[in-house]
Amino acid sequence: MKGLAFPLCLDIGAPSHSDKRADAERLKMALLEEGYPNVEIPLGILRDLPGLLRKRDFEIVPVIGFTGDRYRIVSLHHERTFGVAIDIGTTNIALSLLDMASGEKVGSGDLENPQIAFGEDVLARLHKSMTGEDLRKPLIDGLNSAVVELCDVNDISRDEIVAAVVAGNTIMTHFFLGLPVENIPVAPYVPAVHEPGFFSAVEIGLEIHRNGVVFVFPNAGSYVGGDIISGVLSTGMHCEGSPCLFVDVGTNAEIVLGCRDWLLAAAGAAGPALEGGISAIGRRAAEGAIYRVGIDGKTMTVIPDTVGGGEPSGVCGSGMIDLISEMFDAGIIDRRGRFLSSSGEFVISDAGGKRLVIKEIEIENFLRSKAAMFTSLSVLAKSVGLNFADIGKFFVAGALGSGIDPEKAINIGLLPDVGRERFLTVGNASLKGAEMFLLDRELIKDVRRISSLVTYMELNEDGEFMREFPGAFFIPGVGGGARDNRGAE
Amino acid sequence: MKGLAFPLCLDIGAPSHSDKRADAERLKMALLEEGYPNVEIPLGILRDLPGLLRKRDFEIVPVIGFTGDRYRIVSLHHERTFGVAIDIGTTNIALSLLDMASGEKVGSGDLENPQIAFGEDVLARLHKSMTGEDLRKPLIDGLNSAVVELCDVNDISRDEIVAAVVAGNTIMTHFFLGLPVENIPVAPYVPAVHEPGFFSAVEIGLEIHRNGVVFVFPNAGSYVGGDIISGVLSTGMHCEGSPCLFVDVGTNAEIVLGCRDWLLAAAGAAGPALEGGISAIGRRAAEGAIYRVGIDGKTMTVIPDTVGGGEPSGVCGSGMIDLISEMFDAGIIDRRGRFLSSSGEFVISDAGGKRLVIKEIEIENFLRSKAAMFTSLSVLAKSVGLNFADIGKFFVAGALGSGIDPEKAINIGLLPDVGRERFLTVGNASLKGAEMFLLDRELIKDVRRISSLVTYMELNEDGEFMREFPGAFFIPGVGGGARDNRGAE
Repeated sequence: MKGLAFPLCLDIGAPSHSDKRADAERLKMALLEEGYPNVEIPLGILRDLPGLLRKRDFEIVPVIGFTGDRYRIVSLHHERTFGVAIDIGTTNIALSLLDMASGEKVGSGDLENPQIAFGEDVLARLHKSMTGEDLRKPLIDGLNSAVVELCDVNDISRDEIVAAVVAGNTIMTHFFLGLPVENIPVAPYVPAVHEPGFFSAVEIGLEIHRNGVVFVFPNAGSYVGGDIISGVLSTGMHCEGSPCLFVDVGTNAEIVLGCRDWLLAAAGAAGPALEGGISAIGRRAAEGAIYRVGIDGKTMTVIPDTVGGGEPSGVCGSGMIDLISEMFDAGIIDRRGRFLSSSGEFVISDAGGKRLVIKEIEIENFLRSKAAMFTSLSVLAKSVGLNFADIGKFFVAGALGSGIDPEKAINIGLLPDVGRERFLTVGNASLKGAEMFLLDRELIKDVRRISSLVTYMELNEDGEFMREFPGAFFIPGVGGGARDNRGAE
Repeated sequence: MKGLAFPLCLDIGAPSHSDKRADAERLKMALLEEGYPNVEIPLGILRDLPGLLRKRDFEIVPVIGFTGDRYRIVSLHHERTFGVAIDIGTTNIALSLLDMASGEKVGSGDLENPQIAFGEDVLARLHKSMTGEDLRKPLIDGLNSAVVELCDVNDISRDEIVAAVVAGNTIMTHFFLGLPVENIPVAPYVPAVHEPGFFSAVEIGLEIHRNGVVFVFPNAGSYVGGDIISGVLSTGMHCEGSPCLFVDVGTNAEIVLGCRDWLLAAAGAAGPALEGGISAIGRRAAEGAIYRVGIDGKTMTVIPDTVGGGEPSGVCGSGMIDLISEMFDAGIIDRRGRFLSSSGEFVISDAGGKRLVIKEIEIENFLRSKAAMFTSLSVLAKSVGLNFADIGKFFVAGALGSGIDPEKAINIGLLPDVGRERFLTVGNASLKGAEMFLLDRELIKDVRRISSLVTYMELNEDGEFMREFPGAFFIPGVGGGARDNRGAE
């Protein structure tokens, strides 16, 4: 009953000689009596209403959709109702299928963002879009294929999906809605819209129920997308009394610092290297990717865990953190990431005929990313006069959040060296926030509060970032890391 | 600015480093500052917004449409704005094209209701519809052809028509919206909807601007259609302190009695005969129809006026009233409508080789209709304890209203014999009400008040109708007519 779309049992009562109200007005009155004063009845629904009312003896269970400040009838009768949460990342798209009645997650899916065919990075895609390419259609087509697959696998029909919640960065959101993106990358970096709000599925072209409610998370500017708003929502940090830090590493790294009174967002300069995207051995956290690494200090043997347990095909973000941390602890590399031996490389795996080797350039790239990340956190905290010790909770989300071992991340100086109990790994926070809103429409107040609270801070503007960055390049790094805690491992 | 859709000059201001609000939110803020807090921006409009804002240096003149309790952007830029008022009668459809800026009527059109191919009367069409025929499409197609013609003749594009107001009886309204009609003719006579409200043109399939606001007048049940609500609106009787009577004769005759405190509606049993539909010489008031008749008392020569001034092809409603009245005054027929000579017929015209003759059976049909009409008025007035003398204004609309001479109507006992200054002929009142609402959205309050005030009264229920009916058959009739006023002519 709290969901974005929900069934409502209504006994409308048959018309009689003494009660000749029309069908639509009878329905509206019954809805009003249940506490829903402002319910739109789409024309298509109105056309089916008289027949259905009589077929069901004026007792119906319509599905009501929430549209921000009023309601809309999505469907006149449904046994089952499902909702789909969608996180549109620049590189990866994740979907969850939820049973709207039980709140249970009944399925999930992921796919590569089909826009990758137009360019790996966002700038390339912006350029393509500005030269007339349609980047919306492949995205919607990809989403629809994923929805169809979710339906097939779970044996439901698309009409049973009555709501969708979409979170993505500002550019992905604009592509999803078919909005022009050309003003986003040029000063003063203004998007077409901050609060896209609620749509009917048919307007968007999303192949769920045609009247299904589609909510698109708001952004707080070109640099603070709906994925961040959704991520913050999922952590609940906007309700906390003392400052928390939210770190979300995807294709881009995003940071939010704050509490119930203020929220400060910044774009971490890190990103692809941490997610496992730009090195020769980097992989996203899919089948075959090494996500956890141990190195035997005596034999220098690598003990890798791969996603799915099979032969390793590469190293994902959390695996990379483990690998650097273990190589450093085993004395294979020094604080600057250079090999102590003259080999110039280190063999991670030689299984199944596939040789995985890490080279100095890759370590350097990684350390540059971790330095940028740590510096971002540090500069952001200092900008509001906080030390890491003042921060109550560290929410670690995204590629980092899914499998990260905070201990290792602290060991290499990626995360600050504070009490381990303060770290909370939250996985795909953006998707989680979307799932939460799908099941609880009252969170609209939270969504609106977050997007009005959050302020974007340009980290490079005051020069502080560039002053701190070089020191953070080292393992564990200056001013943070696990320098004084090595013995605690 | 008071219209259902209206242009609004907005200086939105360019974004800057210190004002990075998104385009949509800038627009909404500018609208709020102009007093429009709740304006929906359709997705299609949002897609065009960023480009247009920059092309016009952030000064735009969007067209805003009223949708009942909020607003919607219809179009982002329009030099000219037009609106179309539509009266959908069972037999005839009338359209007016209004310049929304000046309020001027720039064009008008009419057509036969294309549904006539499915049956002249409503019951035949209901039957066809219930057996699966699509009666909506021919209606919408006909309307669209008429709109295209209005556009062509007046050299405007369909996109410049930003609003439409539609008035029709309950069944025509249901056909227009594609709503099921099968419950309307069976007890307890319940329509699908009382207040269809506001739509986008694209939902309806009406070929004006796709975002154009389409308002459909509400009904107060199966027997009190939107045409009556619109007609009452046009007379302003819902604002009068003392009772007024509104008589609208189309394919059906409709009567409303009341004032600002109460409104009582009834279906007059009269109709086709008065409109000129069922007799051999009957015509609607189009080219060639005799609408005014004088008879030289000495020579018995008929002096007819025809619509357009050409050869007479038949007699329309007002012509029929004149003809009966003149024949009676000239001593051609008696009080019962019988010929005093034995000829059994009377030659109205013999011009251009076309002989127009009226026979006793046609006079009898006409007198039956006029008796039903007068009895309806009388019973309705008596039901609330009123005499005709208590009624301040008599609004005469429809086929009767367009060319009627109240003196003649009183002379034959069709209308009650009260002071001539009380009669106001109002033509197509339904179309007029639609035009008025098109130009003044604040009339929505009046529309809502009328439809909530009006009560339907079944005239035949208490037997009073059948008691009075026989006496009303005579010229001028018992209890009414111009019996004591012959000398006043």
